[in-house]
Amino acid sequence: MDLKQLLTQTPFHRWLGVELVRADEHEVEVYLPYREEFNGDDDAPHLHGGIIATLADIAACFAVISASGHDVPSIDLHVDFLRMAPCASLTAVGRAIKVGRTIGVADVEVRGEDGRVVAIARAKVATNAPGRDILTNKGS
Amino acid sequence: MDLKQLLTQTPFHRWLGVELVRADEHEVEVYLPYREEFNGDDDAPHLHGGIIATLADIAACFAVISASGHDVPSIDLHVDFLRMAPCASLTAVGRAIKVGRTIGVADVEVRGEDGRVVAIARAKVATNAPGRDILTNKGS
Amino acid sequence: MDLKQLLTQTPFHRWLGVELVRADEHEVEVYLPYREEFNGDDDAPHLHGGIIATLADIAACFAVISASGHDVPSIDLHVDFLRMAPCASLTAVGRAIKVGRTIGVADVEVRGEDGRVVAIARAKVATNAPGRDILTNKGS
Amino acid sequence: MDLKQLLTQTPFHRWLGVELVRADEHEVEVYLPYREEFNGDDDAPHLHGGIIATLADIAACFAVISASGHDVPSIDLHVDFLRMAPCASLTAVGRAIKVGRTIGVADVEVRGEDGRVVAIARAKVATNAPGRDILTNKGS
Repeated sequence: MDLKQLLTQTPFHRWLGVELVRADEHEVEVYLPYREEFNGDDDAPHLHGGIIATLADIAACFAVISASGHDVPSIDLHVDFLRMAPCASLTAVGRAIKVGRTIGVADVEVRGEDGRVVAIARAKVATNAPGRDILTNKGS
Repeated sequence: MDLKQLLTQTPFHRWLGVELVRADEHEVEVYLPYREEFNGDDDAPHLHGGIIATLADIAACFAVISASGHDVPSIDLHVDFLRMAPCASLTAVGRAIKVGRTIGVADVEVRGEDGRVVAIARAKVATNAPGRDILTNKGS
Repeated sequence: MDLKQLLTQTPFHRWLGVELVRADEHEVEVYLPYREEFNGDDDAPHLHGGIIATLADIAACFAVISASGHDVPSIDLHVDFLRMAPCASLTAVGRAIKVGRTIGVADVEVRGEDGRVVAIARAKVATNAPGRDILTNKGS
Repeated sequence: MDLKQLLTQTPFHRWLGVELVRADEHEVEVYLPYREEFNGDDDAPHLHGGIIATLADIAACFAVISASGHDVPSIDLHVDFLRMAPCASLTAVGRAIKVGRTIGVADVEVRGEDGRVVAIARAKVATNAPGRDILTNKGS
């Protein structure tokens, strides 16, 4: 299985419509096309924080998966919402900061369609409870 | 507008189906009935971390809204995933720890249907950028 | 070695003068008597945030040590500073939330001499890299 | 007052011996010479996590002070300890990520004498409660 296939093995990812744009050894880019259901308010035009946190979680996990070659469960997620996200698509770049024997750490930047950073996130994943092996650029 | 109405003024909340169970002066309980789209894996039976983070964000915000009487935007969200969440409904209890002039802080516990805590979260919201006034137990 | 001895096996703890007040199975209380060197400002009367973070780190680690019976290294530390801490002694209560096979999680409340909470903290420690065995209430 | 003077206006900074190496518009570098009192263990050779957290707090605050021209109080501090820090000097680089009207966000990397990153940190400070005006590169 490769990373793109792995991303689609998740019912929530399929509903979100999230796509893997690229996966390098320590960095991935994921794209979330806009859906009206993502909106955070009927009147004010911005995305829900949970959508941004979800995308950050995905980008962080896939950055460590890309670096380690194994599926990994989340340990924690820390998101700083820097500005309201316009009701439009999002792009997140996740970068593996550390891939240790038990813990991996990744940083994420989430940007709106205009390229402005709407949130930054940092997450930890468990690398000692690896799931399925993944074909990464590194391993293939 | 009261808190239950406010919760439904958000397209993402309506898709999630999240419900306000109770709202006291500093504490709220929100309930998320199960949907198959919440699943985190086609093969392994657990909910996606983004769903848990989203519910934590909602419970934290509504705890501070209940305490302050104003809608509030999120500043940050910190989730610790303590165990895999079974593919079933979730309940989150949010409690306002501090409601200051510029910042509110709330703690959240997210539990599965069996009552076990699946995640704990801590979030900050901006109380100096208040949105719509809300009819709370305190104010009504 | 017991917990009180362990606390004094650290040069930085001895300089701080930190004391273990009590240690239950999942909760510890540590006391930090005031020193002028802890001050955060020559003119404004409050303690330095680093002192508060340090005390939180100690209380979190010792809560998990008390629960697990092993010395544990820190993984992360998350402190929310809720108000300025007066230039006086501090007390921190650390409570183990989870003691898993690889990770422990603890919550901390730091209070000033007047009993007001000046900071809350949440920390993770590595329980799979245990150091010296400790005689705890549980084990003794 | 300039940034170097501000750094020494704090009793805890003077005890630590922390020095400002450089201050650019959005980035500062601070240096912490080694003291034996910083040690985390009588037997194992590593620095105490509280020392690392303290240095991260200082670097984060001074990054935002350098960017904003005002002294700022800490809101929160989130440190990930990536590896044990050798008993030697530390260098921290703090970078202001956002300097908003009410909140500033900064990222910090803490490195040991060998140049390896021992911790990464992210912190928020209050920019709406500014203290003394500071002469920065920007303003001078």
